[in-house]
Amino acid sequence: MKLYDAPVSGNGYKVRLALAQLQRAYDYVVLDLAQGQTRTPQFLSLNPNGRIPVLQLDDGAALAESNAILYYLAQGTPFWPASALDQARALQWMFFEQYSHEPHIATARYWLAVRGGALTAFETQQLQQKRVLGDAALAVMQGHLSTHDYFAGPAYSVADIALYAYTHTAHEGGFDLARYPAVQAWLARVAAQPRHVTIEQWR
Amino acid sequence: MKLYDAPVSGNGYKVRLALAQLQRAYDYVVLDLAQGQTRTPQFLSLNPNGRIPVLQLDDGAALAESNAILYYLAQGTPFWPASALDQARALQWMFFEQYSHEPHIATARYWLAVRGGALTAFETQQLQQKRVLGDAALAVMQGHLSTHDYFAGPAYSVADIALYAYTHTAHEGGFDLARYPAVQAWLARVAAQPRHVTIEQWR
Repeated sequence: MKLYDAPVSGNGYKVRLALAQLQRAYDYVVLDLAQGQTRTPQFLSLNPNGRIPVLQLDDGAALAESNAILYYLAQGTPFWPASALDQARALQWMFFEQYSHEPHIATARYWLAVRGGALTAFETQQLQQKRVLGDAALAVMQGHLSTHDYFAGPAYSVADIALYAYTHTAHEGGFDLARYPAVQAWLARVAAQPRHVTIEQWR
Repeated sequence: MKLYDAPVSGNGYKVRLALAQLQRAYDYVVLDLAQGQTRTPQFLSLNPNGRIPVLQLDDGAALAESNAILYYLAQGTPFWPASALDQARALQWMFFEQYSHEPHIATARYWLAVRGGALTAFETQQLQQKRVLGDAALAVMQGHLSTHDYFAGPAYSVADIALYAYTHTAHEGGFDLARYPAVQAWLARVAAQPRHVTIEQWR
């Protein structure tokens, strides 16, 4: 398999973390987003939406969207919950992640810690809104984790991988995780899983 | 089963359409979003994220996120693709829908056709951005549908249901679907499926 990715990406890190924990071998292809390498005709033939990560299988088929890749990799492993309801619950939290969490928490990190430079007036106004909505998402997680160890069923699953990626780096976007002690305890539980790798050092 | 929903919601319509086509019986509970009925303690106990639709099962368990509900309902039916790759492909398009499509196309419809009233200066600036990103999403769909009849594998699936909801109402948000003929042909294919119901008349 071949993973097209950028090391700084939390969405890419989800896939790297799952691949490490599932002990799957793969080639790693770094794309430079600032150089437009996700907008070339070649890359758009893999993902017409022009985003990393993309996992290319050995038969050439390419799969996009980090959480869909997690689903694919987790089939037949303990990372995909056993019951139909827990499976749907995993997806519930993964859609929550992409709709109510990532657009706010990951974008704040991108603007403040990755891209750097001054924000435009429009971005400053957007960041204020992302601050409110990102904290709302963290509060929802705090509520769930006050009475559960993991997000989908009794064990660590792809839902935890999906939510870990941009939660454990939320401080880089200016969010104060000390306000969410149950989230912090869960981050420690995730980081203590067998074969855990960090976003900087994954192989 | 009990569906908590608002009739105007395209996310709710996804679930209503799937339930109709799968011939599943359910009770329908209308919530008034403008009256804060998704923010009551009772509703937040069903979905701590305070959003409709929510499907409550007969045993009391509540499931949120429209596309996770579609996954749950489709298991064991022809609406869930047969192969592991097509299943992941369905989820790829469903995550595309929630990340790259709905936030732009559905929000434009909500501001212009549902909520009404004047946009703030900030919303006007956001709408310009949503116009660009929504058209980009429709162009990605146009590209896929130029060479495929459906989104995940050879047949109609939950991926088509998920993308149909806010695509067929995109004109209400000011998008010109005449620019996307393959999308228009696909909309007609979806509307011609057995037991199709409309967003206004679903039972």
